[in-house]
Parts: sequence; structure tokens; C-alpha cells
Amino acid sequence: MLSTVRELKALGTDANGRPFASLLVVKKLAAKTASNGNTFFSLELGDRHGSFSCTIFGDSPVFEVFKAAGEGAVIRVEGKIEFYQGRLSPRLAKALALSEDELGAPGLIENLVEIAPENADELWTEFNAFIDAITHIELRATVRAVFDEIGATFKWSPAAIAMHHAYRHGLLEHTVHMARACRALLPLYPEVHGDLAMAGILLHDTGKAIEYEGTLATKRSRRGILQGHVVLGYQLARKAGMKAKLSAELLERLEHIILSHQGEPEWGAAVYAATPEAVFASMIDNLDAKMGMVQRALRQAAGDGEFSERLPGLSSPLLTRPPTA
Amino acid sequence: MLSTVRELKALGTDANGRPFASLLVVKKLAAKTASNGNTFFSLELGDRHGSFSCTIFGDSPVFEVFKAAGEGAVIRVEGKIEFYQGRLSPRLAKALALSEDELGAPGLIENLVEIAPENADELWTEFNAFIDAITHIELRATVRAVFDEIGATFKWSPAAIAMHHAYRHGLLEHTVHMARACRALLPLYPEVHGDLAMAGILLHDTGKAIEYEGTLATKRSRRGILQGHVVLGYQLARKAGMKAKLSAELLERLEHIILSHQGEPEWGAAVYAATPEAVFASMIDNLDAKMGMVQRALRQAAGDGEFSERLPGLSSPLLTRPPTA
Amino acid sequence: MLSTVRELKALGTDANGRPFASLLVVKKLAAKTASNGNTFFSLELGDRHGSFSCTIFGDSPVFEVFKAAGEGAVIRVEGKIEFYQGRLSPRLAKALALSEDELGAPGLIENLVEIAPENADELWTEFNAFIDAITHIELRATVRAVFDEIGATFKWSPAAIAMHHAYRHGLLEHTVHMARACRALLPLYPEVHGDLAMAGILLHDTGKAIEYEGTLATKRSRRGILQGHVVLGYQLARKAGMKAKLSAELLERLEHIILSHQGEPEWGAAVYAATPEAVFASMIDNLDAKMGMVQRALRQAAGDGEFSERLPGLSSPLLTRPPTA
Amino acid sequence: MLSTVRELKALGTDANGRPFASLLVVKKLAAKTASNGNTFFSLELGDRHGSFSCTIFGDSPVFEVFKAAGEGAVIRVEGKIEFYQGRLSPRLAKALALSEDELGAPGLIENLVEIAPENADELWTEFNAFIDAITHIELRATVRAVFDEIGATFKWSPAAIAMHHAYRHGLLEHTVHMARACRALLPLYPEVHGDLAMAGILLHDTGKAIEYEGTLATKRSRRGILQGHVVLGYQLARKAGMKAKLSAELLERLEHIILSHQGEPEWGAAVYAATPEAVFASMIDNLDAKMGMVQRALRQAAGDGEFSERLPGLSSPLLTRPPTA
Amino acid sequence: MLSTVRELKALGTDANGRPFASLLVVKKLAAKTASNGNTFFSLELGDRHGSFSCTIFGDSPVFEVFKAAGEGAVIRVEGKIEFYQGRLSPRLAKALALSEDELGAPGLIENLVEIAPENADELWTEFNAFIDAITHIELRATVRAVFDEIGATFKWSPAAIAMHHAYRHGLLEHTVHMARACRALLPLYPEVHGDLAMAGILLHDTGKAIEYEGTLATKRSRRGILQGHVVLGYQLARKAGMKAKLSAELLERLEHIILSHQGEPEWGAAVYAATPEAVFASMIDNLDAKMGMVQRALRQAAGDGEFSERLPGLSSPLLTRPPTA
Amino acid sequence: MLSTVRELKALGTDANGRPFASLLVVKKLAAKTASNGNTFFSLELGDRHGSFSCTIFGDSPVFEVFKAAGEGAVIRVEGKIEFYQGRLSPRLAKALALSEDELGAPGLIENLVEIAPENADELWTEFNAFIDAITHIELRATVRAVFDEIGATFKWSPAAIAMHHAYRHGLLEHTVHMARACRALLPLYPEVHGDLAMAGILLHDTGKAIEYEGTLATKRSRRGILQGHVVLGYQLARKAGMKAKLSAELLERLEHIILSHQGEPEWGAAVYAATPEAVFASMIDNLDAKMGMVQRALRQAAGDGEFSERLPGLSSPLLTRPPTA
Repeated sequence: MLSTVRELKALGTDANGRPFASLLVVKKLAAKTASNGNTFFSLELGDRHGSFSCTIFGDSPVFEVFKAAGEGAVIRVEGKIEFYQGRLSPRLAKALALSEDELGAPGLIENLVEIAPENADELWTEFNAFIDAITHIELRATVRAVFDEIGATFKWSPAAIAMHHAYRHGLLEHTVHMARACRALLPLYPEVHGDLAMAGILLHDTGKAIEYEGTLATKRSRRGILQGHVVLGYQLARKAGMKAKLSAELLERLEHIILSHQGEPEWGAAVYAATPEAVFASMIDNLDAKMGMVQRALRQAAGDGEFSERLPGLSSPLLTRPPTA
Repeated sequence: MLSTVRELKALGTDANGRPFASLLVVKKLAAKTASNGNTFFSLELGDRHGSFSCTIFGDSPVFEVFKAAGEGAVIRVEGKIEFYQGRLSPRLAKALALSEDELGAPGLIENLVEIAPENADELWTEFNAFIDAITHIELRATVRAVFDEIGATFKWSPAAIAMHHAYRHGLLEHTVHMARACRALLPLYPEVHGDLAMAGILLHDTGKAIEYEGTLATKRSRRGILQGHVVLGYQLARKAGMKAKLSAELLERLEHIILSHQGEPEWGAAVYAATPEAVFASMIDNLDAKMGMVQRALRQAAGDGEFSERLPGLSSPLLTRPPTA
Repeated sequence: MLSTVRELKALGTDANGRPFASLLVVKKLAAKTASNGNTFFSLELGDRHGSFSCTIFGDSPVFEVFKAAGEGAVIRVEGKIEFYQGRLSPRLAKALALSEDELGAPGLIENLVEIAPENADELWTEFNAFIDAITHIELRATVRAVFDEIGATFKWSPAAIAMHHAYRHGLLEHTVHMARACRALLPLYPEVHGDLAMAGILLHDTGKAIEYEGTLATKRSRRGILQGHVVLGYQLARKAGMKAKLSAELLERLEHIILSHQGEPEWGAAVYAATPEAVFASMIDNLDAKMGMVQRALRQAAGDGEFSERLPGLSSPLLTRPPTA
Repeated sequence: MLSTVRELKALGTDANGRPFASLLVVKKLAAKTASNGNTFFSLELGDRHGSFSCTIFGDSPVFEVFKAAGEGAVIRVEGKIEFYQGRLSPRLAKALALSEDELGAPGLIENLVEIAPENADELWTEFNAFIDAITHIELRATVRAVFDEIGATFKWSPAAIAMHHAYRHGLLEHTVHMARACRALLPLYPEVHGDLAMAGILLHDTGKAIEYEGTLATKRSRRGILQGHVVLGYQLARKAGMKAKLSAELLERLEHIILSHQGEPEWGAAVYAATPEAVFASMIDNLDAKMGMVQRALRQAAGDGEFSERLPGLSSPLLTRPPTA
Repeated sequence: MLSTVRELKALGTDANGRPFASLLVVKKLAAKTASNGNTFFSLELGDRHGSFSCTIFGDSPVFEVFKAAGEGAVIRVEGKIEFYQGRLSPRLAKALALSEDELGAPGLIENLVEIAPENADELWTEFNAFIDAITHIELRATVRAVFDEIGATFKWSPAAIAMHHAYRHGLLEHTVHMARACRALLPLYPEVHGDLAMAGILLHDTGKAIEYEGTLATKRSRRGILQGHVVLGYQLARKAGMKAKLSAELLERLEHIILSHQGEPEWGAAVYAATPEAVFASMIDNLDAKMGMVQRALRQAAGDGEFSERLPGLSSPLLTRPPTA
Repeated sequence: MLSTVRELKALGTDANGRPFASLLVVKKLAAKTASNGNTFFSLELGDRHGSFSCTIFGDSPVFEVFKAAGEGAVIRVEGKIEFYQGRLSPRLAKALALSEDELGAPGLIENLVEIAPENADELWTEFNAFIDAITHIELRATVRAVFDEIGATFKWSPAAIAMHHAYRHGLLEHTVHMARACRALLPLYPEVHGDLAMAGILLHDTGKAIEYEGTLATKRSRRGILQGHVVLGYQLARKAGMKAKLSAELLERLEHIILSHQGEPEWGAAVYAATPEAVFASMIDNLDAKMGMVQRALRQAAGDGEFSERLPGLSSPLLTRPPTA
């Protein structure tokens, strides 16, 4: 029986010395050198619901396993529970890194990292249907070309590191939700060019598939730090649009949606939205980002208290109980 | 033949001395005292497309007409065109204030002040249908009670003095557009209580019917300055909800939508949105406010240049031409 | 002999195993479920000068006592001192919750929570004298009606959770101090309507008696989060003013003092102060809030260093020694 | 009979050609060179209630008078009224600069520039009584030494160019008002060292006597631009304190009141207030500055409308009518 | 003899009716329709030192000339001087647009628009020497390729519309000044890669050659509004770098200098500077931008007053006289 | 053999009980009283690379040593290693405070606190050469007089507590770097008075030699909190300039450089830079401060990762690897 980190922590001091086994992600791994010249590792290991720190010396039986695996690897560990004053600090006796194939086992990843609540494959199917529904041939081809290039990464990326939709498949989920809102609202705003707005929404955050890296432990990539997802997404669209022979006029407007979707320069927009489609896409992005925070807080509420913790993105706690009357 | 202010200004200096007749609103009227003790008026007269200043002394044949009419009145004037260095400065010989009945003549008001492009009566019918579609009896009764009290004023109020939907019927138009968006988006956000969100949207800006005053020249009222539309709207809803015997739970949530809809305290929110319905209503308000600025800029563009003037609410000029390809 | 938390912490590791007894408030109590399905409690216990964390499992002899008592209860505990690396982590063997009557014992509460340095009953007597000194009959009746409703809570509320006058009776103390300053300054500003300003000052923060809750552990209430103390105080005054048949003119000005006293919208004001009385009350609030921070820092200084810690409300440490020459 | 600018403007176009005489301040005088090489002046002339622009060529009979007088001079002019499209643009035929003696005529200056409503000599007497009431000998001597140096200038300086107490004697008036408030509040805040706080208040703005220059047309001086009134006032106090042999301890605290009285660095404070006296003085400054704006708006209201214009310092119009009930 | 606008304005009313001739730029031209259906032009005409407005009707002898010429054209006009109340409002009798060849006449442009004080051809020679001095072959080829594409436009562009170096050749001047500072400072900061920093500086503002358009009347282009100069410059460098086969590593760092040179996102940076070269280039940009404002204010000072007008970019007037001792 | 804190921490739990000896600074020392009335110390001990906490009771053999030594002392300690759950918590058996002479031993201080990488004596020689190179006699004498007064302290002060050049000799290093940049840039900006700019740069931060105190543990002094380094530096320059008989004109400009060098009031500037020299000095300060952060991050990088931690002063991590191609 594998124990989750939450279960291990719940055991408490009285379980000291009891054997356990768990499946854990290597969230952080820092190699350090002791004064005797030997290397040791400072690790953070965790799963979907928590994490703990531990130190592995060179003479440990599991040292080589962690050395070979590195950050982001999934490890099956065995050992004995140890608590010092309430902090979990187990001694590890065995460790085995899972292969790529083993990672595909059903339900496995779901226990290790937070994942979008909707089924990723169904979201992906729906996403592709939104692409196919674009009637303008070159616009559709442009969108298609971008996802031919980065679709696989896009499918599992989070939409953020710490804010809305900050979990596996979160980027796909957020984009599909925006596409649904776009389709629902287009009849109300006839001045908006539907194909252009939809193409812009499907592409607006594609730069994040490059900006964030690490399948099980997300951080900003080198390109993310040096260029930012707005410029990276613009470049993806530009390349694809030229390949798809999209007219210069439409390509410029499509790029503009990506360059302006963050709303304000201080939030990362290269320019202010200056076309109906760019204003429209930017506002839908804002709406679904906030509603995504609401949805996640409701999922995590699990009936404890009346209010969630303060949500930084809303500047407030959220009332998580539905009205009774 | 009545001339508009735009037409008069277009005539230019060469028309000096030519007779004219126009229908004009008294936009500002300030009574001043000359050193001889006599009163004279400094006026701003205008219609939908422009305005000019003029001074009326006590011995003018039109003095008594303006004295009786006051700010916001509609006057039929006759006189002679005069230009000083390009500025229109006509001499008025006759003036006649229109009665309430005459103001009802078809097309008349439309020439004097900017008006929502959609028909106000049709908007009002649609608005009432949104009320009727609320299934929760006490919520519907609460909304109905508010509009029994301030509906007539609400119907012609602008949604702002200088920003989005800042024209006659603009408040009604903006609220109907938000209700349409709410109805379109509710299926996508099942965590939102539909009746509560719709009631909140229909009521969110009702305080503006008190904050703004003047049918043909809008300014903030005394209550608007001393309490603000957020508190005024909250008070309207509270009174109506108690009359309709709405449960304390739902009334508190409804009031919260109104108190938080401005988003940030610095924009006037009493508190941050802390329920799913309040977040939802606030984001729809934001979306339609921005799209309203887009729609107005497109209407006013009339094919002149490629871009509009810089729109303060968008921090940018707007590209007003649709894509050609 | 009961030990304070400060005393227990001062004992240090060498006291491990020594028996002790203390009177403590349950500052936080979170029920959690272990992997074996049993519930355990994560507690924060403390008194006026400090707190510590501990975990109570279901088989502990004190488990049922904490379960019945809940957050904010006062418990007499006995046990043995334990330190892990400098952190106090005692083992509790006995626990007994105090009754409401026992909480009234002289000096008891003062050791458990921070309390205004001035005597609460004397402050309350002075406060009521300020009400009685209002000469305008309906204004006085309005103020009286509010405190008939929320006076008992008002008397012990803190004026804030973390800033100025953030302690038991702090709201009463701050309001009395403002009333004293108002009385002292009124002769200097004859344009200020004395009764109106005094009534506004006595009522300006009454919403906090609803916004904060918990007698021994303060947090924001549901109504505080959903409406905020500004609107809650406005509503209290409105109800009382209508009951007292205060003229619409004076009620509007009184409400305006409450709605505007926070100064800037970003600090919570519904509108900017727009009457002489509202400007006056807002500035006195500001003055006494800052001086309250000074007074508290001086009380806590106790002759240690020359400067206090950095005070967030002053953006600076405070020089706590009086001048010597 | 001398006409004020308000009276001249009230005459209007029909008075064209009528002779007039006025007493006016030269508010701005810019010498310019025409293409023929001759110099001409672009002037702004005005009195307490208004101003107008005019151009004086080298062949004008009044050219030499203005050339000799310069900015800030007071000139008796005669000429003929001329209006172009409502703007006063008189032709000047005679001009005579008043001597220093003539400027002392009773009531003369009061018509040319705005002046504190309280009598300046009485304010000055009261001000000196505040100095005399300081019981600490060296503190009193320090304050006295500063006003021995800059008292004459201080007496007529405005407290600001465009905000509160921005008129002749305004600095004296504002400081006396603060001293009165200080005396009234000291009994309520016993932790404040009374002599130190009073000395700090009397000195806090003395740098403005150097920062602003020009008796009838105020602008920032070279020293004001290069050092600012906070540092200039600190330097005045430092020099005087050393001369008066004030202890280093008290001098440092006195300087600190001046350096910190602006409250926030972005408003000009060199440091944040970090002593009880500095916090106290800074808050009284803030209170009286705002109340000074209120008092000035009430004086200027003169029964016209219900509200003043928007006051930038209050971010709001002010309700200028007293309550009726 | 041609008169400048400054000379015409200096003549004043007494010159009414006198004939004149001038060389003027069409700064703005708006076509409007009179009520009789005829088109007329509202023009702003000016030269380096000033401008004036005038209206040209369809029956004017110069109407067709302006119609054909459009905004930014240079016109030789003849007519009669007219003043209305100090405002120049001449009547134009003849107009002749200059050809491209005629615009090349020595000294002509210099009188029509503000121009960098240093000789443009010498600046351009120096600029190219900076390119040639880059030792890294692909970096040099990349820079060269960009200026092969946009060099001609770059050479005459202003560096801004309203702030530093906002005049013809200002972009070239500012970039050369930065290159000189770069060369002078590189020995002091050995951690900076010299060729990379110099290439980044030469390219950092090239997007402005696209963002600004109009040789004699500058405004933001469509691409400037929709993409901004940061992204436009990044795209120029990217295209050139790929053509020059610059390594991916260096191209990314070069692009990063351009993307981050504005310093803060709210000033337009796509990302914060994250390499030594990007920090270095950004700070040199800042230094020379401010010093450029100083230099321009000193040039324009011309010995009038001690201080310049307030310079928005420095938030202060500048002391324009050199120290005397 | 002495162990560094980094070495001790690297040993880990397995070294428990092993003897060690170290040379450590007393970074913080707080005396506390146990409930038995005895005093004990809570200490933070550390060296250049780390620190740990420990508690010393009155009966410890090392109690008197720490009591006599106080904060900032350097102590040679011996004891046994102890770890609790990864935190170093050694037991001290012997302690010996080093004398002033012993502190002078080569390499000793360098191991205890972070020190400028360049040799302090060489920096000081170069610094004095910059003073000697000032050709204007009184300016040079002014600068010299300031360093006669505070040179010894200036030489070892850090330039900041937590930002750029925040280490021993950092103030000297930063000032020398600015002087080098000043000398390199002066030929490019001929409008800048070289001697004045250089004198201003050498003096601009001298107030920090008073604002920061403690040779081995830096904190803000009383004068730093009450006056701030800008005013303290201004006062140093003023006193020295008057002693050196510097002309009032140059002294005012020199003081202005100091008063304005922080750039914006919210960053501590008393006024905005308003002379060419002040703008120049302020921008060089900014440039070298940022480059100093870059240099320090590169020194600390030591080949670990590609990027540094996020640097608060740059709002970004820094790419610490040089380009490879």
C-alpha cells in the first residue's frame, strides 16, 4: 500500500519507526558539498497534497537513484517514518525511479500533481473542434500550424505558476473555457470578427507552453525569462501565419491580439488593445481567469469553513457555500 | 429649415450676417452681474454635434426666455450668423422654449443629445423580460420593486458622464447588454447561481439613476456626491428586498454584488467581490463597458481616418476599419 | 502557581520534564483526519504575551475538553514542559474550560489578551457623557439608538485587527480619544457644526462592532467580508436616524461622515469627504489613529532599546525614549 | 473711480470705447523681439479677482513705465475698453507705477491680491505670544532666533502656491492655526513634549519664506528649486539652535520634526516621523491644511451654488451651505 | 524675403494688411464638409518656431494646391497679414508646393523642423564606424543587415514624439551618443560582452524607425500602435540575425537587450533586463535620454531666464546658467 | 583547524557529538530573563557564509564572554556539533573574544563578513587620486575636508544594508566606480562642469557613513533614522564648503547634487535634479548601482545554475553564464 504525503503527516509522532512506501515527485534537488569534499543532496519530495524536505548523503543506499533521476522525476520510495516535533522527516532505505511507460499508468499522475478537473483528452478534442470551426481558411491553417508545433506541450502546460489555472492541463482548460465564452458572446457583439477573435483566443497564451517547463515541477524556462510568453506567442503566430500565407492585414491583427491580451503594460502587454477583437479577447481572458480562481477555490473548499483562505487574485476570501434559500 | 451647430460652424466667416434658425439645448447658464448692477447671462448652447458660447444682456429680446427656461431647456432660436476669427458667435433675435409635449416629437431629442443606438422602448421591453425570467419569486419581486421606484429615471439615464455608454438610455442599454451576456455565459459557469447573478446585474448600477441628474445636461447630484452610486444602489436593493421578503441570506448576497461590482476600492467598490456571482457580475460589467467604448468609437468613426482619437478608457486609439481580407 | 507563556519559553531546554500549569486561550483549532480515520486537533494556545502550537490526538485525556470548547475558549491546562530545539512543545495531561462566570474574575482577561490601558468602565461613562452633551435632540437620539443596539459589542471591540488600537476596548478608547480631540478643536473651527461633527465621530466606526468578531480571538465576520464596516456603520446610522426622526438633511450629512471617514477610496471610503464636518472628522480619525500607534509602542517599549521595531503604520521605528534635556 | 477686473469684464462688448481706470498688478511680463528688431511686451495684468493679457509695443506711451516697473509692480492705468468676442483686451493710454509708500495705503493691497481673512498684525501678535509661552529657555531662544532672521518675510508669505492657505499672510495664518490646535490637543496626548512640539510647529514651514518669492506674484525661488523648503527650514533651525546653545538631543529632535513634517517621502519628507512630537506635528499640519481649504472654499462660495467647484486638495466639490435643520 | 512664423507673430496687429511670404509645413490638414455640401480645409501651418491655424474654402485660389499636397508637404505661401486679437490669421493668396529636389536645398529643412544640432552626415559616418568596430563577424553582419533595411529612415527619425531627442535625426544622435558612452564605459565593466552590448545599443531603438512616420510631421504609425517599437525592433533584429547566421545563443541575448531596454514593463519593456549586457544598455539609454533633455533645454535657453520651463522628463525646471565661479 | 558555518552545516546529523572550533561574529545578542529571574542570551552567530541561533544560559562557561563582548564582537568558539532535524545547534564549551589587534590579522575579516572584491587600500589610493585631480582649489578643499572628518568610517562602510554594494568597503568601491565612470563620460557631455560633477559624486553618499553603523553587523543609526543619509551628507558638505571658503554659488550646486542624487522623492531625494551636474551624477549612480548588483550576482554564481536567484533590485533572475559563441 502506497501512502500519500497527507497520510504520512497525519500519522504523527506516535508512528515513528513504522515502515512506509510512497510514490513521490522530486520537486527540488540541490547538490551540495560537505567539508569532507563529499557531495550530498538537499531534496524536496512531494505529491499532489504536500511535500517534505530531506537530506541524502553519499553513503545512502538511495543516493545514486536520486543522482540519476534529477528534478521532476517520479520515485517509488520505502523507508521508516520519523518525526521531529511534528515535522515529517523519514529515513529512506529504497528508491526506484519510474520509467516513462510506468508514468502513463492510469491515475498515477493525478495523485502526484494537481490536474484540471475536466478530462484532458475530451478538452483536447473540443479544442480541435474549435480550430476546425474557423471558416477562414488561412486563419484556420495558421492556428493549426502553431499547434502542430507546440500542441503536445500545450496540452499539459499549466496556465500559470501560482495564479489561475495553475495546474496540469490548466492552459488547455483555460483556453477551451475562453473559446466557449467567445462562441457564446459573439452573437452579442457583431462588430467583432468571429474567426479572428477565435483564432486570437486559441493562440493568445501559446507562448506559455515555452515559458513554463518541467512536467511535474513547473518553473520559468530560459526563453521565458529572456523573452516572456507574450513575445514567444507572437513569434509562434508570426511564423505560422507566414507559412499559412495569411494576409498581412489579418496576421497583423492576429499578432496584435496576442501582444495586447494582458491588458496593461505593467501586466505584460506589449501594447494596449486597439482593435475590437483584441479588446474582446482581453476581456474574456480576464473573466475566465477570475472565474477559474473561483472554481478552484470551490473545488478545494471541501466543506470545511464558510470562506476560503484569502485568494491573492481576488484580494479576498471567497464565500464557498452556495446560498441556502 | 433648422440648422445644426455643425452646419453653422461649417459655414465660416463668409456667412456673416446671414439669417439662421436652430433648435438648441441650454447646456450651461450662469447669471452674472455687470458693474452697473444689471444681470446678464453667459450661455453655452448646443445640440448633439457641438456647442458655442454667447452672452445675453438684460436688454436683449431673448433675455426673459432664457431666464424662465434655465439649464437643460430646449430653445428654438433665430438670429444672424457672426464669426470672430473662426469661432461661431451668432446674434440671437428670437427665442422660444419648447414645451414638454413638443419635446416628444419624433426625432427631436435624437438631434439634441446623443442617444443609445438601439430603440429605447424595445430595450425596455427586453429589460422587463429579463426581470420576468427570474424564477426565484422573491428575487424577482425585489428587482421589480426597485424598478417600480426608479424605472422611469433609469430608462433615460446615461451609464456615465464621460466614459462608456455616456449618453441618453446608455444605462438601460449597458444593463441589457450585460443581461444578454449573463444569459449567454451562465451555462458555462454552473457554479454561478443564475437568478442571483441576473438580479445583481439588473440592479448593479441603479444608484446611477440617482447619482446623475438632468435630462439634457448630465451632472452629479447632491446625493451622488455625498453617497455615491454604489451605496445608493445598495440602499435601493435593501429596501426592495425587505419589502419583497427576500431571505436575509440572498439579500446579503444581492447587496454584495452591488457593493463589489466596481472591482477595486480605488474604482469605488465598497468591498472586493467574494462570491461566485459577484465575481461573475463584476467581470461582465468590465467586459461590456470596454466593448461599449469600442461600439461608440466605431459609430462615431464614419469612415474618416484609420484610427479613432485616443480613447481614455482604452488608453489607445482604436483601429476603426474592419479587416479587408 | 500559573505560568505565562513568556515564563514557560524563558525556562528553556533544561526545564524539560518539569510540571507546569497555565491559563490559555484557544487561538486556533483545526480538526484534521489521520490516515487511520481518527480525528486530531492542531492547536494554537496562548495568552497576552505569546503562543505555541501543539497537536492533540483522539486518545489524549484532554481531547474532549478542546472539542467541546472550540476557538476563543479559555482553558486551564496542566502538563510537562518539553522543548525541541528551543521551541516550546509541552505535553498536556489535564485541561479544564473556564465558565463565563470564571472569565469575569478580576485581572483574568487582562492576562489573556491585550486590553486598552484606560479603564473600560470609565471610558464607557465618558463616552455616554459625550452622547448626552449633544444638544440637538434628534441627533442625540440617533446616536443613542445606535448604541442601544450595538453598545455592548462596541464596548469590547478592538479598533482594528492589526494596526492602531488593535486590542480589547480599543474601539471604545479610540472613539473617546477622538471625541476629546473634537471637543478641544471645535472652538478653533467655527465653520464646523459641533453636534453634527460629534455625532459623526461617535458613530463613524460602529460598523467595526459587526465587522470584527470573537471576544478572545478577533477575525472578520461574514458581514464584514461581504459589506465592510463603512457600509455596516452607515446602515446602523440610517436605521437609527429614521427611528429618531432626524431631518433628511442632517441624516444625509451624518451618513456622509461615516461613508467618507476613511479618507481615500483605496482605504475604503465610499466617497470623498465633501462637508466641513466630514473633512474634520476624517482628519481627527487620522490624527488619533497615528497617535494611538505611538502610545502603544511607548507602552510596549519597557525601556529595552532606544527605538521600537519598525511600525508598519508609521513606516518607521519609533524613538521611545523621552528627551533627556 | 477705479474699476476692478471683474467689473470691466462684466461690462461686455457694448462698453467698447468707454474710458476706464484701474489699479493692477503686473503678474507676468515677457520681453519679446519683433522681426523689425524692436522689443515689445507680452503682459498679464490683474487684481484680486481676475486678470487679462495685453501686448505693449515700443511706441506705446506706457511702454517705458512697464519696462521700469517689472513683474510684481502695481500700476495705475487708464485707457479705453475693448472686447474681442467676449475677451477683455483694453487699449492703455496712461500708466503710473505706485511707490512703496503708496502701496501701504489702507485696503489697497487687499484689492490686488488675496489676503488671509484674519488681521495680519493680530496674527503676528498671537504668534509671538506662542513663542513667549515656550518655557524651555533654549527652545524658545532657538525659535526666536529663526524669526529674528526671517520673520518679516514669514509674516506675508503664502503657505503654498496653489493649494491650502495660498495667499498673502497664509503661512502666518496656517502656523497660528496649528499652534492653537497644538495647545488645545496637548492635554490629550501627555506623551508629547509640549515645548518641543510647539517649537517644531512654529518652525516647520519656515523654509517656505525662502522657497517662495515675490510679494504680489508668487513663484519658487532658486533656493526653493535647488534645496526645497524642508531642507531650508532644517538649516534655519540648525543655525538658530546652535546659536541658542540648544542641547544636541533637543536640536536633533527639533530638526527631525521639520525634516519629517510632510508625512511621506513622495510629498517631500526627508524621513518618516519617528518621535511622538514629529507624528503629532505632522498630523496637525495635515488637519489644518485640509480645514484651511474648507475655510477658503466657504469664503469664496458667496451663496452661489450648493457646491463649490471640485477642490483638488479634497478630490471633491465641497457642500458650502450649512445644514438648515 | 521669407518671414518665419516667429517673425510674423512678432509683427502684431499694426501690420494688418501688409504682404508677406513664408515657407511652411502642412502640420495638419482636415477636410470638412460645409452644409452646402462643399469641402473646405482646416489647416495648421508652421515652421520650426511656431504654427498657426487657418481655413481654406473651395473657392480659394490655393485650395487645389493644399488638396494635392497633403499633410507633411512644404508650401511656399504669399498673402496678407491679418490679426484677430493677437492671433495670427493671414489670408493666403498664392501657394506652391516644393518638390523633393527643392526640399534638399541647404538650410531649408533646418528652418522648418527642429534638427539635431550635430551634422547628420557626420553622425551617420560615426555610426557606421561603430558598426565596423564590432569584431564578432555575425554580430556585425546582423547589425549591418538591419541598417541595410531601415537605415535611410533611421537616419532622419526622431527618438521620440514629445520627450528626449524629439527632433529630426534625434534617433541617430541619441544612438551615437549611447555608443560613445558604451565605448567609454566598457573598460570599467569587464563582465559586459563588448560586441554584444554595442550591437544591442545600435539596434535597441530601431523599431522607432517604423513606429514613427512622417518626415515633417511625426505621428505613430499603424504598426507602431498595433505592435510598438520594442516588438518591431525585436523582429528586425531576429530577421537580420537569422540571415547573418548569428548563433541562437547570441541572437537570443541580442533580442533580449531590445526587449528589455525600456527598463520597466509599465514603460514598455517586454521583460526585465536579465543579462549583464541588457542591464548595461538599459542604464546607458536612461542616462543619455536624460542628458539629451538637459542638452536641448540648454540650447533653447538662449540666455533668457535663470531656469528653463519645467521639463516633464526631469519633473523640474533646469538651471540653465553655468556656474560663475 | 577552524570550520566555517558552511562547513559545519554540510556535516549533517551524522557528525553529532564531533568537536569543532570556529571564528564567529555575534550578529545579534538579546538578553532575556527567565521566570527564575536569571538572565540568558539568545544569540545569532555567523561568518561570511551563514549563521545559526543558539541560547546561552547564565550557568554556561561561555556566558560571561558573550556578556562582555556584545553585538559585533568576533569570538573564537569550541564545542560539539549538534543537529536537530537538519538545523545546526552546537553546544559551546569555550569562547574567547578577539582583540582589536587580532582582528587585523590578514584574511581574518574577509572570512567573517562579505568584503568588496577589490583591495580596499588600492581603492582608497585611487579615491584620493580622484580628489587630487579636482583642479578647482576650493572644490578640492571641500571634498578633502569632508574626508578628513569621516574618511576612516567611509572607507569600510557598506553602500547599503540589503541592496547594491551591501558589504564592507562597498561604499568606497561604489564611489570609486562612479568616479571612474564620471571621468570616462565627461568628454562626451561638455555641458557638465567636470570638477563640480566629480566633487558631487565623491560626496554624494557620505551621509551613509553616518547612517549605517556597526563594523561587523550593519544597522541604521539614530541619526540615520532621524535625518537620513541625504540630509546628513548635505550637512557634511555644507560645513566643509564653508570651511574651505567655496563660493556660495558652487556650494549651492554641490549641495544640490547631494540633495537630488536619489532621483525621485519617493526614493529619498529632497528635490529633483535641476542642474546638468545633478542629472549626470544621479544617472551614473543609478548605472553603477545596477551594475554592482550584476557583479555581485556573478561573483556569487560560482557555476551552479544558469540563472541566479531573483534579484530584487533587478526584478529578475540574472543569466550568470557568459555567452558561449
